[in-house]
Amino acid sequence: MKNRIAVGMIGFGTVGAGVAKLLTGNAGPIRRRLGVPLDLVKIADLNITADRGVALPAGVLTTDAREVFEDTSLDIVIELIGGDDPAKRFLLDAIARGKHVVTANKALLAVHGEELYQAASKAGVDIGFEASVCGGIPVLRSLTEGLAANRILSLYGIVNGTSNFILTRMTEAGRPFQQVLAEAQKAGYAEANPTFDIAGIDAAHKLAILLNLAYGTPVNFKDLFVEGITGITPMDIAYATEFGYTIKLLAIAKVHDKDNEAPTEVEARVHPTMIPIDSPLARVGGVYNAIQVTGDAVGDIMLYGRGAGAMPTASAVVSDVMNIARNILTGARSRVPVSGFQIDQRRPLRIRPIEEISSLYYLRFMVLDRPGVLSRLSGILGAHDISISSVLQRGRKDGQTVPVVMTTHTAVERNVRASLKEIDALPSVSAPTTVVRIEGEDR
Amino acid sequence: MKNRIAVGMIGFGTVGAGVAKLLTGNAGPIRRRLGVPLDLVKIADLNITADRGVALPAGVLTTDAREVFEDTSLDIVIELIGGDDPAKRFLLDAIARGKHVVTANKALLAVHGEELYQAASKAGVDIGFEASVCGGIPVLRSLTEGLAANRILSLYGIVNGTSNFILTRMTEAGRPFQQVLAEAQKAGYAEANPTFDIAGIDAAHKLAILLNLAYGTPVNFKDLFVEGITGITPMDIAYATEFGYTIKLLAIAKVHDKDNEAPTEVEARVHPTMIPIDSPLARVGGVYNAIQVTGDAVGDIMLYGRGAGAMPTASAVVSDVMNIARNILTGARSRVPVSGFQIDQRRPLRIRPIEEISSLYYLRFMVLDRPGVLSRLSGILGAHDISISSVLQRGRKDGQTVPVVMTTHTAVERNVRASLKEIDALPSVSAPTTVVRIEGEDR
Repeated sequence: MKNRIAVGMIGFGTVGAGVAKLLTGNAGPIRRRLGVPLDLVKIADLNITADRGVALPAGVLTTDAREVFEDTSLDIVIELIGGDDPAKRFLLDAIARGKHVVTANKALLAVHGEELYQAASKAGVDIGFEASVCGGIPVLRSLTEGLAANRILSLYGIVNGTSNFILTRMTEAGRPFQQVLAEAQKAGYAEANPTFDIAGIDAAHKLAILLNLAYGTPVNFKDLFVEGITGITPMDIAYATEFGYTIKLLAIAKVHDKDNEAPTEVEARVHPTMIPIDSPLARVGGVYNAIQVTGDAVGDIMLYGRGAGAMPTASAVVSDVMNIARNILTGARSRVPVSGFQIDQRRPLRIRPIEEISSLYYLRFMVLDRPGVLSRLSGILGAHDISISSVLQRGRKDGQTVPVVMTTHTAVERNVRASLKEIDALPSVSAPTTVVRIEGEDR
Repeated sequence: MKNRIAVGMIGFGTVGAGVAKLLTGNAGPIRRRLGVPLDLVKIADLNITADRGVALPAGVLTTDAREVFEDTSLDIVIELIGGDDPAKRFLLDAIARGKHVVTANKALLAVHGEELYQAASKAGVDIGFEASVCGGIPVLRSLTEGLAANRILSLYGIVNGTSNFILTRMTEAGRPFQQVLAEAQKAGYAEANPTFDIAGIDAAHKLAILLNLAYGTPVNFKDLFVEGITGITPMDIAYATEFGYTIKLLAIAKVHDKDNEAPTEVEARVHPTMIPIDSPLARVGGVYNAIQVTGDAVGDIMLYGRGAGAMPTASAVVSDVMNIARNILTGARSRVPVSGFQIDQRRPLRIRPIEEISSLYYLRFMVLDRPGVLSRLSGILGAHDISISSVLQRGRKDGQTVPVVMTTHTAVERNVRASLKEIDALPSVSAPTTVVRIEGEDR
């Protein structure tokens, strides 16, 4: 029996400091859980002089990452430098040397996950990445263990705190996107370059990771449909409220063939979505994250909490390290496969192209208020097999541009796109139509 | 490497049938996760002729429970008969024979858990009981694994679907307890004898199980303070709404010494509680369950879902069986200790007696509307160091009985009880005072 577990860490930024604090501050309870101490013996970072507010023994800090991943005395290596290179190289190197690894690097896993999963599987080491999705909320572990008996029918996630903060503030204050983005940046909830968050890319990264674990499928990141929140206006939010909806940036995965124990296709997409205002996800405000999972046996489950921040993320990292430590201490190798399913028994799923999905739609047309325009719009929609559920047109202003808002019954995206191509080319239509998909019952 | 995991089950009622359906219906995905099949080879029940809607091979059913727990070919035994005896005897017998066990028997675990945990620990077998708390929601696994790095600062649970359904309906419909209870019984949400649910005992059973895992402390069930919902009236619910609160039956655990990594005392109690109407738990309606956990690192997490029902409960049972199967297949023994902490390194916590707790209080006095009564009440409260936060008295009816409602600032329960003893003895007080504890900020 080993009398301790030795841990090394590459990257000593905000989350790294949180991990060091947690391993130090909770050393007692951690030891009482594991039976042996979890010792952080080596930390590599280019900056080893800045004060992170945590006391470390002499010799722990180094500027040379190789001192971590080449150290044969280490059992587990934590990677927290982010980015593709050299993070991927460091991880593959540590794995090749038989070390277990833990990472929070969602961008890397989303795009290069399969290579890392295969390498870890081949080497018989664990790769922990709970921290890559929804911070400290134990979402990944729930998919692979707590809900393991279920086939996952659908998964809806609010997985990006920045865009949820922006949409929540836009809804509460009725202010435009750019203004609220500036506010979020000032409050530290959005980065100076917020593209990954507001364009939906960060959420799509997390969706790729979730898909792998929920369905045991390799994911080609480029197959995921991604649309950000930059096109959402206060006007659309106001209309959403009138229709009984809230707008959230959702990561969505769902299978259609619910009675088939091995479906062949899955929907996987990220976009602003109108959801019923009284649904549990609609109430997830601010920087909070939540995931609603529907399993064939368990029904609807929701997991909710802070999706980011140094300590919530450190909670996931250290819990992963403890989980791996338990495997090491009991001699369990590859206890839970890296993709939830045995890697040689996975069934790759086709990701349904966005044109083929069916959905309810919110359409906001900007039209010149002239006789016959409404009949023209509905005529084109009807010709494309799109049936209108409700129409809102308010305040007539003869000859001026006014919004006409419609919601549809279930329609095929390809038809919606074709109809809007025609509609947006009409002389009486003065701006491209705004489209927001709706998740909810078709009534 | 074993080429299958053999499972036996004692008890073939509603949940047992759900387990059999899940193991049969999801056999494919389960095998692809584990690498080997999970075979349900023996089921014991007194009734083996009723149709449970699941096809089983010949020879699986038996009326003799010994055929399950004495069968040396079985790896895991599921106990679903409920009650103390013979369930406990069967479990201890299976454990003594080196079998891993899974049970949903919360009443047994709450009262005799320590004996079972010690036996399992000594025999080096796993005991899975996720299904005993909140059905399919992976609450226990989150406490022991996903949030393992945290010290749990507090835990608030809506863990009894029946009483949550009744309180939700009373709030929505403004109808009295007895009427709504009858409605719940008709809808199948309350049993013919609903005592365990409405008296808070079932919730306290779950709290005992949660305490063991959150704090690694043995629990003497009799130390838990338990108060049910039978005393809640539509009038109190209406007042709660006016004060901005909702009434929920909560299971509460919290430590006070938050900076101490090994606290010595914990509050643990079940009672109707007023909570802010806009808090996440307040929105958990009907038969749904939810647990809000605050960890020192992760902050607030909420887990939400169906807390009962055949398939959600079966989800937890089968996920536990799969978890144990993974341990068996990788040779991991006692990978996660039965109480979350190493059994010899636990620190027993004192459960703070209810008289010693501090809380905010809602007090509804029924008084004769006479001059000086209010000053009399507040005088007695003040003399017991209880400071009033707000008072509501409406509709004067000289000389008749009227409600006077107060909320207090933080007060000690012992003082509240002493003051009410005096107050309820006053000639102008015509009924015992109704007390509901409030969880929220003292403003």
